[in-house]
Amino acid sequence: MTREQLTEKILDIKREKGWTWKHITDAIGGMSPVLVVGALLGQHKLVKPLARTAAALFGLSPAEERMLNEVPMRGTGTPMPPTDPLIYRFYELVMINGPAWKALIEEEFGDGIMSAIDFDFEMERQADPKGDRVAIRMSGKFLPYKYFGAEQGIPPLGYRED
Amino acid sequence: MTREQLTEKILDIKREKGWTWKHITDAIGGMSPVLVVGALLGQHKLVKPLARTAAALFGLSPAEERMLNEVPMRGTGTPMPPTDPLIYRFYELVMINGPAWKALIEEEFGDGIMSAIDFDFEMERQADPKGDRVAIRMSGKFLPYKYFGAEQGIPPLGYRED
Amino acid sequence: MTREQLTEKILDIKREKGWTWKHITDAIGGMSPVLVVGALLGQHKLVKPLARTAAALFGLSPAEERMLNEVPMRGTGTPMPPTDPLIYRFYELVMINGPAWKALIEEEFGDGIMSAIDFDFEMERQADPKGDRVAIRMSGKFLPYKYFGAEQGIPPLGYRED
Amino acid sequence: MTREQLTEKILDIKREKGWTWKHITDAIGGMSPVLVVGALLGQHKLVKPLARTAAALFGLSPAEERMLNEVPMRGTGTPMPPTDPLIYRFYELVMINGPAWKALIEEEFGDGIMSAIDFDFEMERQADPKGDRVAIRMSGKFLPYKYFGAEQGIPPLGYRED
Amino acid sequence: MTREQLTEKILDIKREKGWTWKHITDAIGGMSPVLVVGALLGQHKLVKPLARTAAALFGLSPAEERMLNEVPMRGTGTPMPPTDPLIYRFYELVMINGPAWKALIEEEFGDGIMSAIDFDFEMERQADPKGDRVAIRMSGKFLPYKYFGAEQGIPPLGYRED
Amino acid sequence: MTREQLTEKILDIKREKGWTWKHITDAIGGMSPVLVVGALLGQHKLVKPLARTAAALFGLSPAEERMLNEVPMRGTGTPMPPTDPLIYRFYELVMINGPAWKALIEEEFGDGIMSAIDFDFEMERQADPKGDRVAIRMSGKFLPYKYFGAEQGIPPLGYRED
Amino acid sequence: MTREQLTEKILDIKREKGWTWKHITDAIGGMSPVLVVGALLGQHKLVKPLARTAAALFGLSPAEERMLNEVPMRGTGTPMPPTDPLIYRFYELVMINGPAWKALIEEEFGDGIMSAIDFDFEMERQADPKGDRVAIRMSGKFLPYKYFGAEQGIPPLGYRED
Amino acid sequence: MTREQLTEKILDIKREKGWTWKHITDAIGGMSPVLVVGALLGQHKLVKPLARTAAALFGLSPAEERMLNEVPMRGTGTPMPPTDPLIYRFYELVMINGPAWKALIEEEFGDGIMSAIDFDFEMERQADPKGDRVAIRMSGKFLPYKYFGAEQGIPPLGYRED
Amino acid sequence: MTREQLTEKILDIKREKGWTWKHITDAIGGMSPVLVVGALLGQHKLVKPLARTAAALFGLSPAEERMLNEVPMRGTGTPMPPTDPLIYRFYELVMINGPAWKALIEEEFGDGIMSAIDFDFEMERQADPKGDRVAIRMSGKFLPYKYFGAEQGIPPLGYRED
Amino acid sequence: MTREQLTEKILDIKREKGWTWKHITDAIGGMSPVLVVGALLGQHKLVKPLARTAAALFGLSPAEERMLNEVPMRGTGTPMPPTDPLIYRFYELVMINGPAWKALIEEEFGDGIMSAIDFDFEMERQADPKGDRVAIRMSGKFLPYKYFGAEQGIPPLGYRED
Repeated sequence: MTREQLTEKILDIKREKGWTWKHITDAIGGMSPVLVVGALLGQHKLVKPLARTAAALFGLSPAEERMLNEVPMRGTGTPMPPTDPLIYRFYELVMINGPAWKALIEEEFGDGIMSAIDFDFEMERQADPKGDRVAIRMSGKFLPYKYFGAEQGIPPLGYRED
Repeated sequence: MTREQLTEKILDIKREKGWTWKHITDAIGGMSPVLVVGALLGQHKLVKPLARTAAALFGLSPAEERMLNEVPMRGTGTPMPPTDPLIYRFYELVMINGPAWKALIEEEFGDGIMSAIDFDFEMERQADPKGDRVAIRMSGKFLPYKYFGAEQGIPPLGYRED
Repeated sequence: MTREQLTEKILDIKREKGWTWKHITDAIGGMSPVLVVGALLGQHKLVKPLARTAAALFGLSPAEERMLNEVPMRGTGTPMPPTDPLIYRFYELVMINGPAWKALIEEEFGDGIMSAIDFDFEMERQADPKGDRVAIRMSGKFLPYKYFGAEQGIPPLGYRED
Repeated sequence: MTREQLTEKILDIKREKGWTWKHITDAIGGMSPVLVVGALLGQHKLVKPLARTAAALFGLSPAEERMLNEVPMRGTGTPMPPTDPLIYRFYELVMINGPAWKALIEEEFGDGIMSAIDFDFEMERQADPKGDRVAIRMSGKFLPYKYFGAEQGIPPLGYRED
Repeated sequence: MTREQLTEKILDIKREKGWTWKHITDAIGGMSPVLVVGALLGQHKLVKPLARTAAALFGLSPAEERMLNEVPMRGTGTPMPPTDPLIYRFYELVMINGPAWKALIEEEFGDGIMSAIDFDFEMERQADPKGDRVAIRMSGKFLPYKYFGAEQGIPPLGYRED
Repeated sequence: MTREQLTEKILDIKREKGWTWKHITDAIGGMSPVLVVGALLGQHKLVKPLARTAAALFGLSPAEERMLNEVPMRGTGTPMPPTDPLIYRFYELVMINGPAWKALIEEEFGDGIMSAIDFDFEMERQADPKGDRVAIRMSGKFLPYKYFGAEQGIPPLGYRED
Repeated sequence: MTREQLTEKILDIKREKGWTWKHITDAIGGMSPVLVVGALLGQHKLVKPLARTAAALFGLSPAEERMLNEVPMRGTGTPMPPTDPLIYRFYELVMINGPAWKALIEEEFGDGIMSAIDFDFEMERQADPKGDRVAIRMSGKFLPYKYFGAEQGIPPLGYRED
Repeated sequence: MTREQLTEKILDIKREKGWTWKHITDAIGGMSPVLVVGALLGQHKLVKPLARTAAALFGLSPAEERMLNEVPMRGTGTPMPPTDPLIYRFYELVMINGPAWKALIEEEFGDGIMSAIDFDFEMERQADPKGDRVAIRMSGKFLPYKYFGAEQGIPPLGYRED
Repeated sequence: MTREQLTEKILDIKREKGWTWKHITDAIGGMSPVLVVGALLGQHKLVKPLARTAAALFGLSPAEERMLNEVPMRGTGTPMPPTDPLIYRFYELVMINGPAWKALIEEEFGDGIMSAIDFDFEMERQADPKGDRVAIRMSGKFLPYKYFGAEQGIPPLGYRED
Repeated sequence: MTREQLTEKILDIKREKGWTWKHITDAIGGMSPVLVVGALLGQHKLVKPLARTAAALFGLSPAEERMLNEVPMRGTGTPMPPTDPLIYRFYELVMINGPAWKALIEEEFGDGIMSAIDFDFEMERQADPKGDRVAIRMSGKFLPYKYFGAEQGIPPLGYRED
C-alpha cells in the first residue's frame, strides 16, 4: 500500500459521504485544520490519538491507521511551478518578493531563516465591504545561522548587529 | 540602461554609504518597506513622489528616477527552486502545504484564489522566550471565480455554498 | 561590484601572498574556520568585527568590508550534482542514505528535521594506522514540526510518541 | 521480483505488525541501525546472517532472503533535489558548505576525498535545554589522491604539505 | 544594427524625455496605441507614415526609420511561461480555459480558428464601484477550416452544422 | 474511446479489407482526399454527411461516427522534428526557406501571414521524362495584420506600401 | 568573417539604401528571387556570375563575394518551432497534415519522398474578391526508395503497385 | 495492431525456428537483404510479391501481410545518439567527418546533396590478413539544388562551376 | 588561440586567395583529401610533414603549425541532428538503417563492430545517364568483441558461428 | 519476449537456487566471467556452446537459448550519470581524467583510440596490508586513425612521430 492510495481512498469516502473538510476536522480535532487536512492529503503525519479518530471516522484498517501516523515522503504531488491558480499565487509571491523578504528579515533578525517547521499558520476570513479577504497569519521561529566556534565578542547566534 | 544595472548601482551606493534598508525606507517612506525594498531590487515600481525621494537619496539621474517609476518585467533574478535557504523555506511551505491551503480556502470562500496583487504583507518581530519569531500577516483579497452569466439562485461570486 | 568579484579578489590575494586557509582563519579568528572560509568564498556573512579584521588582512576597501558583512544570495556556485569528487561524496551520502536517516531521525525525535541553520560542524583529523580519517561532528537542532492549534493531550511539538 | 517490490512488502509487514525500526533493528542486530534500515529500504545489502534473521522476522521466502543479501542498484528512489524537508536540509548543507569543506579538508589532509564507503555514521540524541539536537558523527577514511609513480621527496599519498 | 538595439535606444529616449506611451502614441497616431507600442517594442511593423513620425519624434536616423518599417522576427523576448504576473495571467487563462474555448467556438462556428492576425484589440478602463475593471474587447475573424474540394451539400466553409 | 483508438481501428479495417485510400476517399467523397484522409488519421473533422458515409463504409457505431464529426485535438502524433524522411523533407523546406518566404511575402503583401486554415491544397502527379514530380499547389488567404484603430491615410489592412 | 556577419552587413546596406528585395533581385537577376533572397540571408549559395553582380551592387570585397559563392552551413538561424507567426503557419501545416500527405503521396507514387532539393517554388499573388491569396506552387521530384539488388518482377524503383 | 507488434512477432518466430537472416532473405529474395531485413524490423515496406513470400514463410495473416506492404512511419526505434556500439560508430563517422564530406562533395558536384533515397548499399566481407574488413559501397544519386527560375548562363542544376 | 579560430583563419585565407579544396589538398598532398580537409576544418590531426606544408601554404606561424599537428577535441561543431541537408542525409541513413546494418554485420562477422578509426573512405563521381552519383567506398576493419579468457572450443574472436 | 524479460527470469532463478556468479560462470565456463555475466545481464552475446550450457543450467527454452546467442541492443539499462556508487566511480574517472588520458595516449601512440571492443579485462583481488585492492588490468588494442591514401614518407598508421 502506498500513501497515495490511502489519500485517494480517503477522498473517495469524503465524497461518498458528502462531508466537508470542516466536518472532518471538527470530528478529528486535536490541532489546526490545515495540518489535519495536510495529513489526510498525504503531506503530514497524524499523531496517534488523531490517527485513531481519523481511522474511526473513515473506517480504516489498523495498517491504514498506522500509515496515517507515519511521516510521509513529503512534497510529492505538487507540480512546481504549480499549474493550479490558487497555489500558483503563493509561488508567485515567493518568486517576486523573495529577495525583499530576505533583505528585510536579515536586517531585522540578522543572518538566518524563518523556520518552515516551527511554524504556525492561521487562515481567517476577513470581512471587507470591498470583498472579503483571506487573512493569513504565519509565524515561524527565526533560526539564526549558528556561528559555531564563536569567541566572546561575536554576537551570539547571528542576531541583529546594531 | 537596464533595470539590473540600476539595481546594482543602488546596492553599490547603499554599501558605500553604509546605509541599512531601514535608513533607506525611512528616508523614502510612503509605503511599506517591503514594497520599497522590492522596488529598489528591481521587482516593483516606485510611485513618482517616492521615486523622486529615492533619486535624491541615491543621487540618481532623472532617467534613472524615471526607471524606478516604471513597472519592471517582474520575476527575473530568483532561480526557482531557490538556492538561498531563506527563500527556499517559503518555496517549501508552498510545495508541502499548497494542497491543504487550496482545500481550506476553497471550502471557506468557495471557488477562487487569494490575490497576490491586492495583497498586504506585514512582517514583525515577535518576541518569544523560546526564540523570537518572524510573524507575517498577509491578507489578500479573495477573488472568487466569477460565475459570469449566472442566473438568480446561483450563489453570487462563487461564495461558500452552505 | 558583485560578491563573486569579491571572492575572486580574495582568492587572488591569498595566492599572491602564499597564505594557507589556516593562516587566514587564525588571523581572523572569532568563529569556526569552516564558517570563515565559507564567508570568504561568498556563502556566508562575516559579522562586523570579523569583517573588519578580514578587511584589514586583505587590504579591502570599506565597501568591500561591508559586502563581507552582508548575507549573500547563498547556494550559487556549486553545480548540482557536484562534479568535484570531494563534494560529490557528500552528495552521494545524502542520495543513498537520505531515506534511512529520515526513518531513524523521525523514529527517535518524532516528526521534524535537523536544522541546517542552528547547526555546528567540526572537522578533525583522526589518526588511524590504516589511514587517517576525516572525522566530522555535526549537530543540528532538532526542529519538530509544530502542531499548531494543538489541544491538550496532543504530544507537544511533535516529539517522540511512546 | 524487483528490489522495490521487496521494500514495499517489508514496509507493509512493518505497518501490519506495528513495529518500530528500533524493534526491527534490535531483532536483526549485527550492525548499525542506519545500515540495516538502509538495506530494508533497498539501498544496502544485508550480510548473510542478518539477511537470515531479517527473513525470519518478516517471514520472507528464501529467494527474498537472498535478495536482501544482494547489493542493490543504489541511489534510485530519492528525487534530487529532494522534496522532503528532512532530506533537503542535508542536500542544502552540501550545496552551501561544499566549497568550504573542500578547502579545509584539502588543506588539512592534502589532495583527496573523504570516503563515502569506508565510512562510519552514528546518530545520537543530544539533550539540550534549548531543544534537543541531532548529533551526527561521521568519519570517513581520508583517501588521498595517489601520486602514483611518485619519486622520493614527493610527499607520500598526497598528504599535507608543510 | 539589430531590432533589439533599436528598442533599447527608444526606451532610453522615452525615459530621458519623460514621455508616457500616451504622449508617444498621440504624437505618432495613425492606429491603435497597442500596435504602435508593440512596434516600438520590436514586435510589429510601423507603416511608412508612422515610421516617419516616430523617427522625427525620437530623432532617429533614416536607417533606423526604415528598420521600424520592417516586419520584425516576431515572438522573441518573452520567456514562456512568463514570469511577469501581468503577462502570466493571460497565459493562465489560455492554459485553464483553452479546451473549453475550443469546444464552444467549434460548436458555434464549426471547425476553424479565431484569427490572431485579422484581430482587433481594445482596452478600456471600466469604472466600477466595486473596483474599476480592465475591459478588453477582442474580436478576431473566425477562419473556418476550408473544406477544399468540397462538393455540393457539404456545408460551406465548415460553418455550424445544425 | 480516444481518437487514437478510432484511428487504429480504421487502419485495421482498411488493411483487413485491402482498401486503398483512393477507394476510401472515392466512397466517402464530398471533399478533397487530403482532408478525408487527414480526418481518418485523426487530424481533421468530417462534417456530418461524410461522417455518416464513413461510418457506413467502416461499420462504425453511432458514437464512433460522432467522434469523426468532432474536431480533434490536432497536431498530436507527429514527432517534431519528424523522423520519417517523407515528412522531414517538408520540415526542412520550412527551416531552410522560412526567412526568405517571410521576406518576400511581406514585401509583396505587406505585414501579415498566409493562412493555414483558409487554405487549399492540391497534389498532382506531374509526368516528367526526368522522373515524375509531386506537384503541390497551395493557396492560403493572405491575412494582413489588422491595423485596428487606423486613421485615414494609413494603408488599410497592412497591404503593400508602394 | 562568418556568414552571419555578412548577412547583417547586407541587411544594413539594404536599409541604408532603402532598397526593396524586388530592387535587389531585379538587379541581381539570374534565378528565382526566393533563392537569391535565401542566399543573401545566408541559407543558399549564389553561383559565380550572381555573386559578382551582388558584390557589385552591395560594394562587397572579393572575399565577401567568394563567401556568397560558398554553400553555407544551412538551417541555422530559424528557431524551431518558429516563434514568428508567418513561418509558424508553414510549420503547423507540416505538423497537422504530414501524415495525410505521406499516405497520399505514397499511395500515388509508391515508397519514396518528394525531394526538397530538386524542387521548384513559385509564389504569386492571387487576386480574390474575398481577400487576395498567397498562391504557392511547388514541385519536387519524386524520389522512389531504390530497391537495390531487386530481381526481375520487383516493380522498379518503388513505383505505384496496382 | 501496430508495426512494433508485428516486428516483435517476426523476431519471436525467427528465434523459435532458429533461422538466420540469410535463411530468411534467401527465402524471400527479390531485393537486397539489407532492405528485406529493414522491412522486417519495421523500417521499410516490402513490395507485394515479397510481402506474400514473407507472410508464407512466417505464417502471417492476410492483414499482417498487408501491413508489411505498407510504408511504415520510419525512424522510430533507434535512440539518437545510439547506445549500441555498432550503430554508434556510424553516427560518429557522420559527426566527425560531416563537414569534410560536405566540403568535398560540394566542390566536386556543386550545391546539392547525396540522396538517402535513390541510394544503393552493398556490404561485403573483405578478407584481410590483418583482420577482415567490413567493406561498404554506397552510391547515392547526387541531387543538385535546383536553381529554379534560372536564366541562361546560370550553370544548370547547380553543377560544378569551373 | 583555439582550434576554431585557426579554422576560421584558414577559411578566410582560402577565400582571400580564391583557392579550391583541390588546390589545397594537391599542394599539401600526403594522404586522402578527406582527411586533409577534415584536419583543416579542425576535426583531424595533420602529421608533421603535412602540417609543415600546410603552414607554408597558408603562411601560418610555428605555433599554428604545431596546433595543426595536435589531435583536436573531435566532434564539436556539427549540431546533432544536423540542420544542413547534406549532412542530415547521412544521419538519416544511420537512423533508418542502423538496426538492419547491425543485424547483417553481426550475422556475417559475429559479435563486433566496424571500426570508425581503422577506416578508409573514398568518394568518387560516378557518371550515370540518369544523373551522376556520389559513390562512396568505406571499409572499416571488423573488430570482433574479444572473448577474453576464452577456452578452446570457443570460436576465436567472436567470428561467425556456422 | 524481450531481452529484459529474459534477464529478470535469469536473476530470479539465480536467487531461487542460491547460486553465486562464480558458480554460474564456472558451470558455463568458456570465457572470462565478466563477459558471461554481462551476457546474462543482457549486454553481450553468448556464443552457441555457452548459450547451450547456460540454457541447460537455467532450464531455458530453445527460444530463450537462442536469444542468449543474439547480440543484444547494447547500452540500455544504466542511467547516466550512474546513481550507483560503484559504477559512478568509473564514470568519474573518465570525467576527470579523460583529457589527460587523451593527451598521453596520443603522444605515446599517435592519433587513434584504445579499442573498447578488442579489449581484455581482468579483475583480481590484490592482497595489500593496507587494504586489499581491486586490481584491474585492461588492455585494448590501440587503433591508429588510418591515414588512408597516405603517400610514402607519411608515418604509417598514425603511430608516434619522433
